[in-house]
Amino acid sequence: MGHVTEVGAEVTKHATGDRVGVGCMVNSCRECDNCQAGQEQYCLKGNTGTYAAVDRDGTVTQGGYSTHIVVDQDFVLRVPTSIPLEAAAPLLCAGITTYSPLAHWNAGPGKKVAVVGMGGLGHMGVKIAVALGAEVTVLSQTLSKKADGEAFGAQHYDATSDPATFTTLKNSFDLIINTVSAPIDMSAYLGLLRLDGTFVSVGAPPEPLPVQVFSLFNNRRSFAGSSIGGIAETQEMLDFCAERGIAPEVEVIDAGAVNEAYERVLKSDVRYRFVIDIDTLR
Amino acid sequence: MGHVTEVGAEVTKHATGDRVGVGCMVNSCRECDNCQAGQEQYCLKGNTGTYAAVDRDGTVTQGGYSTHIVVDQDFVLRVPTSIPLEAAAPLLCAGITTYSPLAHWNAGPGKKVAVVGMGGLGHMGVKIAVALGAEVTVLSQTLSKKADGEAFGAQHYDATSDPATFTTLKNSFDLIINTVSAPIDMSAYLGLLRLDGTFVSVGAPPEPLPVQVFSLFNNRRSFAGSSIGGIAETQEMLDFCAERGIAPEVEVIDAGAVNEAYERVLKSDVRYRFVIDIDTLR
Repeated sequence: MGHVTEVGAEVTKHATGDRVGVGCMVNSCRECDNCQAGQEQYCLKGNTGTYAAVDRDGTVTQGGYSTHIVVDQDFVLRVPTSIPLEAAAPLLCAGITTYSPLAHWNAGPGKKVAVVGMGGLGHMGVKIAVALGAEVTVLSQTLSKKADGEAFGAQHYDATSDPATFTTLKNSFDLIINTVSAPIDMSAYLGLLRLDGTFVSVGAPPEPLPVQVFSLFNNRRSFAGSSIGGIAETQEMLDFCAERGIAPEVEVIDAGAVNEAYERVLKSDVRYRFVIDIDTLR
Repeated sequence: MGHVTEVGAEVTKHATGDRVGVGCMVNSCRECDNCQAGQEQYCLKGNTGTYAAVDRDGTVTQGGYSTHIVVDQDFVLRVPTSIPLEAAAPLLCAGITTYSPLAHWNAGPGKKVAVVGMGGLGHMGVKIAVALGAEVTVLSQTLSKKADGEAFGAQHYDATSDPATFTTLKNSFDLIINTVSAPIDMSAYLGLLRLDGTFVSVGAPPEPLPVQVFSLFNNRRSFAGSSIGGIAETQEMLDFCAERGIAPEVEVIDAGAVNEAYERVLKSDVRYRFVIDIDTLR
């Protein structure tokens, strides 16, 4: 996140001084059906990740832990003035990753939505689902962050370590957003979906998850995946968050504190995202 | 399938002499959200199966291998005169099981649909998907039934025993209807779905299928299940098949030939459904 310092001769979308951000991808083929549909994240030739990916010109992308970045105007987002830069940063990953499936699967008034996990992704999922008008339940291992969940607007908060949760909430949800990357008992979670409900994973364990197909038959359930969002949709999410006053909870750190911060991330000891003040790199 | 021989005093939907049929379920709770939505097959208290299920009154259902059946009018389907009774029989199972997901996931003009398996379910899936206007591909283990598939209107026919099928058809389909109950390589099949494509199983192996969640991220894919259809939808399917002249391929047998027929079913030696002439039971 930062300000435009220089633009090329043919740049029309951004000007020097603009508050902007660059998310998880910096390029795509621009030509395939998915790119043409504005879903560059699903580019059929593969999008170009911001971190250590080989770009279309053969160079390797260098990531965002830097004072400057050179990037095509089409992959630069405008940051509304009401969003502080440190709050905007996680929106380009945790924000869009949860906004995209919530919007795609029509979270909104009259819909019951569960968010599994209350970390960096989950807490944004809760805030956005609440802002979209859904009735929101947090499903977290314990109730340790219940006060936070309620402060973010969740109506319900249940512990997945309590087996009763899976009987009490059976056949309840239209949409479940799973932000947990660890293996989970899919039959138990699918059982929570009501008619035509969808369980969307935005996190994934490296190993395959065993799915009992019979648990999909009941209620005509779906198990889906979703990955960040397209550029237009990311802009839409930023504008939505600005309009609704939604921002992630962040802890700003100096660049020199990254190793300590990394250790704390491994221990889930952050509420809810670290943001590096890149001025401390200069 | 048969004719109404007698009706109760309060019956209004059917009259003596009507051509009717009874499918895979004969009752449901009528009160839950799913029943109220006309999706009795997903009754939250469990629908009452036609074969050896405990009905709401505590009696055990006796199935359809019989000269007569006593059944609530709400679970009786009208058979349009243009459909021969022997052709109507499999429609109430294989017909509705494939029609329901094809209709629900909008198979139609401009959509690419694959049907996995060319048995009793699969051959109806092909005929119905073609009638709905979709571009249809059969994915069968071998090309042995290719001529049949083309006769049923499929535009494409590919062998799943050929690994090239999974590279050639990658990112191709909006909808895949899986009629195979044996375990399959889910990553390979999910890879065939294009943006927002759905893989729907109507068959299921007893053991869980390993699903690599990353294969759902690409193209925002879904893995869903579907089970027969509601009563109103089953009537809609019968009327649709009558109007479009669609019927299953059947081999009519005498009741005395069921053991031999069963052995042939186990060997997939039937094109494509056996129907018992129940008059031979009298």
